[in-house]
Amino acid sequence: MKNYEKKQNWKGSALLAPVPPTLITCQHEEKKNIFTVAWTGIVCTRPAMTYISVRPERYSYDIIKNSESFVINLATTELVRAVDFCGVRSGKDVDKFEKFGLTTSPAKSVDAQTLDQSPINIECKVTQIIPLGTHDMFIAQIVSVDVAEEILDKNGRLALEKANLLAYSHGQYFSIGKQLGSFGFSVKKKTKKNNNKKRNRK
Amino acid sequence: MKNYEKKQNWKGSALLAPVPPTLITCQHEEKKNIFTVAWTGIVCTRPAMTYISVRPERYSYDIIKNSESFVINLATTELVRAVDFCGVRSGKDVDKFEKFGLTTSPAKSVDAQTLDQSPINIECKVTQIIPLGTHDMFIAQIVSVDVAEEILDKNGRLALEKANLLAYSHGQYFSIGKQLGSFGFSVKKKTKKNNNKKRNRK
Repeated sequence: MKNYEKKQNWKGSALLAPVPPTLITCQHEEKKNIFTVAWTGIVCTRPAMTYISVRPERYSYDIIKNSESFVINLATTELVRAVDFCGVRSGKDVDKFEKFGLTTSPAKSVDAQTLDQSPINIECKVTQIIPLGTHDMFIAQIVSVDVAEEILDKNGRLALEKANLLAYSHGQYFSIGKQLGSFGFSVKKKTKKNNNKKRNRK
Repeated sequence: MKNYEKKQNWKGSALLAPVPPTLITCQHEEKKNIFTVAWTGIVCTRPAMTYISVRPERYSYDIIKNSESFVINLATTELVRAVDFCGVRSGKDVDKFEKFGLTTSPAKSVDAQTLDQSPINIECKVTQIIPLGTHDMFIAQIVSVDVAEEILDKNGRLALEKANLLAYSHGQYFSIGKQLGSFGFSVKKKTKKNNNKKRNRK
């Protein structure tokens, strides 16, 4: 296995990859917005919990603080231009829904909208806000998830590889590449079925 | 743009992708371990802060709680089998370093070791522990980052695409695919240089 022998020690920076560049939708009273967040992740499996880190000066900050709700919409490669634009331009200045022909539907479990152009909408209820510096972290419970039928397999199970999700790595957007293994593959024993197959191979 | 019209509303689950399947190294007194964490992300840009969510019953939990330090080692596609194994098997039962020939070097800024087979080591100092359910979240400052010279470009800047990082999406490991754009590309004006190029093209 490759050893990286020569390394430089740099000062700390927000370097972690790949991360999901997601589109967040939120609304409160007459205000409604969509914006890009890559500072997100899962923080707990049960209860299912996530977070988004948001700068207090962003237009959506007060919307989410007041509604205590938001939706994480997973982004596809088809959405890459909208994802980039929604991370650069503010909802104060431009209607980002209109610009890209983005449409929404009412969320099922929280006071927000889900993005119709995203195959997975993660409906979140804020439980805690932690100020950290440039960003405040909104910790939230994942109350429900909306899954497009087009990315289910014939048994009704989620086949997320059909979604063509977008990845973000150090200032660049990428598609997802080749499948290299499934969770647990390194300890999987050969099953009898596999052994039989092998034996029957001439 | 594609609309996903038919959706099913599922109960909340830890569904977010792609996320980075990282190898965490930690040590305290005579104990030393390496284990896999995909529940990680950036939580603040300045100061640079991250988190890892860890089950209290994991062997590394007390090590990190006591040393207040850990290193996030970004995983390459070459490490996929080690990543999977280190997420499934406990350091209580097996020396995972030995099994995969993994070696470490002392971290520069925290009381931990960095993985030699990873091109990026993120050295972290714990600032806060938040219990959430199955997992506790360790929030941490990124004190420094070790970057392999092999993934720098000729100007000494980080060219992370050279690292062949691994991605994790709903139980499967993937390579990173095609580059689709750089941050800000959706609002970039054509430069004079580009215009000239265009004009000169016959």
